[in-house]
Amino acid sequence: MYPEPIKKLIEIFSRFPTVGPRTATRFAFYLLKTSEREKKDLTEAINSLSRDVKICNFCQKPFTGESNLCEICSSPSRDRTTVCIVEKESDLEAIEKTGKYKGLYYILGRSISTLRKEETDLLNIEDLKEKIKNPRKFGLLDASFKEVILALNPTISGETTSRYIEKELKALGVKITRLGRGLPTGGEIEYADEETLGEALERRK
Amino acid sequence: MYPEPIKKLIEIFSRFPTVGPRTATRFAFYLLKTSEREKKDLTEAINSLSRDVKICNFCQKPFTGESNLCEICSSPSRDRTTVCIVEKESDLEAIEKTGKYKGLYYILGRSISTLRKEETDLLNIEDLKEKIKNPRKFGLLDASFKEVILALNPTISGETTSRYIEKELKALGVKITRLGRGLPTGGEIEYADEETLGEALERRK
Amino acid sequence: MYPEPIKKLIEIFSRFPTVGPRTATRFAFYLLKTSEREKKDLTEAINSLSRDVKICNFCQKPFTGESNLCEICSSPSRDRTTVCIVEKESDLEAIEKTGKYKGLYYILGRSISTLRKEETDLLNIEDLKEKIKNPRKFGLLDASFKEVILALNPTISGETTSRYIEKELKALGVKITRLGRGLPTGGEIEYADEETLGEALERRK
Amino acid sequence: MYPEPIKKLIEIFSRFPTVGPRTATRFAFYLLKTSEREKKDLTEAINSLSRDVKICNFCQKPFTGESNLCEICSSPSRDRTTVCIVEKESDLEAIEKTGKYKGLYYILGRSISTLRKEETDLLNIEDLKEKIKNPRKFGLLDASFKEVILALNPTISGETTSRYIEKELKALGVKITRLGRGLPTGGEIEYADEETLGEALERRK
Repeated sequence: MYPEPIKKLIEIFSRFPTVGPRTATRFAFYLLKTSEREKKDLTEAINSLSRDVKICNFCQKPFTGESNLCEICSSPSRDRTTVCIVEKESDLEAIEKTGKYKGLYYILGRSISTLRKEETDLLNIEDLKEKIKNPRKFGLLDASFKEVILALNPTISGETTSRYIEKELKALGVKITRLGRGLPTGGEIEYADEETLGEALERRK
Repeated sequence: MYPEPIKKLIEIFSRFPTVGPRTATRFAFYLLKTSEREKKDLTEAINSLSRDVKICNFCQKPFTGESNLCEICSSPSRDRTTVCIVEKESDLEAIEKTGKYKGLYYILGRSISTLRKEETDLLNIEDLKEKIKNPRKFGLLDASFKEVILALNPTISGETTSRYIEKELKALGVKITRLGRGLPTGGEIEYADEETLGEALERRK
Repeated sequence: MYPEPIKKLIEIFSRFPTVGPRTATRFAFYLLKTSEREKKDLTEAINSLSRDVKICNFCQKPFTGESNLCEICSSPSRDRTTVCIVEKESDLEAIEKTGKYKGLYYILGRSISTLRKEETDLLNIEDLKEKIKNPRKFGLLDASFKEVILALNPTISGETTSRYIEKELKALGVKITRLGRGLPTGGEIEYADEETLGEALERRK
Repeated sequence: MYPEPIKKLIEIFSRFPTVGPRTATRFAFYLLKTSEREKKDLTEAINSLSRDVKICNFCQKPFTGESNLCEICSSPSRDRTTVCIVEKESDLEAIEKTGKYKGLYYILGRSISTLRKEETDLLNIEDLKEKIKNPRKFGLLDASFKEVILALNPTISGETTSRYIEKELKALGVKITRLGRGLPTGGEIEYADEETLGEALERRK
């Protein structure tokens, strides 16, 4: 019923995460009615994604620039003895925002929910192992890792992923840590699960 | 922190309806990781919006084609004695889907929530009046309206808009009707407001 | 862990509709901390339910008083040619609040979701038939029904119940009507289902 | 409209926490239709609350029994050098369920959201101080506290209450600790606030 370009946009937006056909329709009509300037800015930004954004040779973070390494991996002020493994870019951003972490990162790109081979194969664990053993090979000249922080979500898939990586990295002899568990800001003791509350009690200070 | 094209996309998507910065970020990363094909399809569809989509000379519906009138307004099988006034394209689509309406439409483009002049001026009521009086002037050669259906939402702004239009069209001598009120599918008598339930009782059959 | 009377209260409140163990616990502690006066008022009101509340001999509404008929069934000002069949007391209340209905009621006490005998047997349809045929037998001396309004929810179980009753009452030769369907106050055309919107179009006025 | 005992029940249930008039109505009709046995069990349990439930002389927990102390305070197997201050009974229950805590408790009964005198006066801090200094005076013959755990919610009112108590207890020379902060089970790094994530990083292990 809608004209072809609008139908096409609804179809494409429906594949965006969290977007259903109704929201996709609103997006298409928003674009129909927005200024030519705004539409051009959007197509420009999409084109620039393909043209200008590179993936860091070490941590796999997207970045722009001449180097093969992102601004964190190439910064002389970061601690090159610690690497923090995160699932995705937004986790890295969240940790950066705390201002409490000064080491490097490694973006896994996904988590796994079972230890079946089809799933673990998706993690590219050999790339991770090699990067932790020989960071110099990837351009991190003065890096030598003493601690790997597994900063994965305390969810079932996060825990499964952490356990798998921990087992795989054991042979490297590097210290492996995980984020502390406890009550979050705004949390309520009454509704906390036993594991969270148990850890909160043990780590009291 | 994110590279420039990603920041730009987050900024643009944040202006989409219902989208906050977090969802906008997910959209930007979805695009970063999607195929070149998908990105190209999206920019193509956006370009086609500007290039190919026209607004119908009579009903203001977006459409594609050579004519100045959309496929509904130019269809010989539609009843050209009735015009249904809707707020937006998706309302028109919803009415078309019922298969119960065979007349023409007019898309207002908005509703108003007060009768203050700043608001009523946005409705372009003269365009509506002229189109109802002289549909031939707009290319609807054999049209002559006997009934105007005000198909606006039974909400405060829909009711305000209906009242305003009804008053403005009165002098044209055309019959003005509104959609029936009552209990919707899945509604519950216990939770229905008094007006809805009162109308449901009066229109029982 | 909690003392016995509190555990008992949690167990009883957990059987209340919509109440889970957490809310039941809050209720128990609310009672523990409330005044003796409030606790006494509650036990008094519960005792009074058993002692003072009767069920109307005709419409099955709960009421207090000397008569066998509730205040609606015994009111001389109600129209005794119309009976409105509702599922439950709160539906009757909702209809009374509109001030648009002056006839009598019959409370079914439930709806059914299939036409299987185990379910239809729960409706006590013979009682309903007998009351519509011979209201005098139940103390409604001057009643003689010309119209039965099926005021059941426009939901699947409401529709199933309506169809069943309609079929069963057909032989009585009384006019059977249903509440009007359409858009409720606050509803949106865009989100209305096709049946509701179709009826709203057909019943426009 | 509803008979008096039902109206009274709706009024009383509407004062229950989280209950509005609609839910209160459902509760009243649930009771009307439930068995006499169930109604009697409920009034019995309410009567037993007033008659049988006592408040522990030390921790203020409700309990039943001959003693002046609850089953935790009078248990010889609990560690009488640690006292855990909680806001309410359900927090105590949650901590007991972890099985990780073997000390005693003190139920404050409330939290405060500002340090204004009208609010702090509600906390009865002198009772708390006296009980921590001289537990023997309250029947805890062999108790002598070395640690006070402030197990209040990591919310604004919980933090305000913790700060106030910490300041007031400082002079007693007892060690004061708080529950550990961090990511809860099921939490997501991306959505964690900076404080929670910062603490999770610092307390990694």
